[in-house]
Amino acid sequence: MITPYFLENFWGDKNNGFDVLYHNMKHGQISSKELSDFIRERATIEEAYSRSMTKLAKTASNCSQLGTFAPVWDVFKQSTEKLAACHMELVRKLQELIKEVQKYVEEQAKNHKKTKEEVASTLEAVQNIQSVSQALQKSKENYVNKTLEQERMRKEGATQRDLDKAGLKVKKATETYKSYVEKYANAKTEFEQRMTETAQKFQGIEEEHVLRMQEIIHSYCQSVEETHIQIGEVQEEFVKNMENTSVESLIQKLAESKGTGKERPGPIEFEECNVSIATEGANPEKGKPLPYQADGEIKTQIP
Amino acid sequence: MITPYFLENFWGDKNNGFDVLYHNMKHGQISSKELSDFIRERATIEEAYSRSMTKLAKTASNCSQLGTFAPVWDVFKQSTEKLAACHMELVRKLQELIKEVQKYVEEQAKNHKKTKEEVASTLEAVQNIQSVSQALQKSKENYVNKTLEQERMRKEGATQRDLDKAGLKVKKATETYKSYVEKYANAKTEFEQRMTETAQKFQGIEEEHVLRMQEIIHSYCQSVEETHIQIGEVQEEFVKNMENTSVESLIQKLAESKGTGKERPGPIEFEECNVSIATEGANPEKGKPLPYQADGEIKTQIP
Repeated sequence: MITPYFLENFWGDKNNGFDVLYHNMKHGQISSKELSDFIRERATIEEAYSRSMTKLAKTASNCSQLGTFAPVWDVFKQSTEKLAACHMELVRKLQELIKEVQKYVEEQAKNHKKTKEEVASTLEAVQNIQSVSQALQKSKENYVNKTLEQERMRKEGATQRDLDKAGLKVKKATETYKSYVEKYANAKTEFEQRMTETAQKFQGIEEEHVLRMQEIIHSYCQSVEETHIQIGEVQEEFVKNMENTSVESLIQKLAESKGTGKERPGPIEFEECNVSIATEGANPEKGKPLPYQADGEIKTQIP
Repeated sequence: MITPYFLENFWGDKNNGFDVLYHNMKHGQISSKELSDFIRERATIEEAYSRSMTKLAKTASNCSQLGTFAPVWDVFKQSTEKLAACHMELVRKLQELIKEVQKYVEEQAKNHKKTKEEVASTLEAVQNIQSVSQALQKSKENYVNKTLEQERMRKEGATQRDLDKAGLKVKKATETYKSYVEKYANAKTEFEQRMTETAQKFQGIEEEHVLRMQEIIHSYCQSVEETHIQIGEVQEEFVKNMENTSVESLIQKLAESKGTGKERPGPIEFEECNVSIATEGANPEKGKPLPYQADGEIKTQIP
């Protein structure tokens, strides 16, 4: 149970407590719209970040497929794609949350409309005590003036007829004054009663409002935290993949994919021409390559 | 000590092992430039994210300062600003790292230039074994042709003078062939020796290159991880601040800042006009307000 702060603090001789509390309630609608806008902007930022990460992943996949380092780009690409996905997942969650906030915004507007009707009698009581107080003040002034007027006439020796007339006026002013004293007492009772109820109602509305806002923020935090954990996992996996990509494995992979062969050039010895064999077949030596033969195409050049 | 993969796998009868290894080394320059570009792009993404967060913090600080929820925006603003700062700190670290990568890129280019000079004799040995192999093949063919020509002439009963002439040609062709067999043996020895050294050198260069790249990636990961931890702390602080912002404290804060007063309207009773006092002074009742007086200005209206 929360201290009834509103019940305690919105009286005072200026009597605009009701006005302040009513407007405070209405500000709640601005707050919930602003919270919705804030989350939407965050979602937009996360979406842009995610798209940039997807582009960065493409950069990684467009990197040279040549050289010893080439296989590492695949690790970069995969990790960056996962990072993009994490942020896109956050966008999806925030968009869901925005829908919930929108629902609350509408619900809140409806509740405020209902509340406006419910506090209409309080507003009347406020306006009533304001006008009755004013009238009471005027009737009191009139009563004092009429009484002094009668006294003045008495001292100046006015006729009995004039004195009777003035007495009648005093009697009438007294009655009016007394009736306003009575009306004020009623207006005061009514006002206090209504204000007490309404101040409590307004505090209840604010409590409910702040609670709902806190729930939304809690959801927001949860989504952000989940994403943070996922990003941490992607990063951890990246580090692990990098650790598993040893220098030796990269050297080996290159040797396997680009290797030109394991055989060194063989020895070549002088072969005497055996005329009888050579003339038997159709020059069998012709076309048989040397064990090590340069075909003239592979002329190694350093660019 | 890493297995000498390059020494084992870059022979083969096509003899372009040197060429492949040399180009592989040169690809290393592309890789390091690409890594630098990748980190630069990441830094650009982080910078854009940070600037968007700064903008979002401004959105939070521009949110309504009215209503019960208003103080919460300050928590949003501070947290979002800190988030922006975390990402900007990452940008700073990545920019430092890019400078280091640039240094490596330059160093690497210099080393490759030096290596090009150092392997020049290997290139020569490659080109030599290529041309000697070709010449050997040709001289062998010539020797066979000349021998068969002499045999053909003998069978066709050529003059002694012509046979002597043909014999001289065979002798010359034999000498040339033999000399190329010898030259080939030398070229082969030279080539094997040079290629053995150079393949090892190239592997050493690749090992060094991959290690440097891994160091850079390690630095990159470290910066990303540090930022991740900082972001986690900011998020945790935000959650804690939200938890500390109780509904009661917000209600109390509003009551304190917007409260209109604690005093309820007082009772007003009928006051009889005391003529003797009233006429003594100059109408002292006039101007003295009622304990509860509506001044007509505060006319509570619901908008």
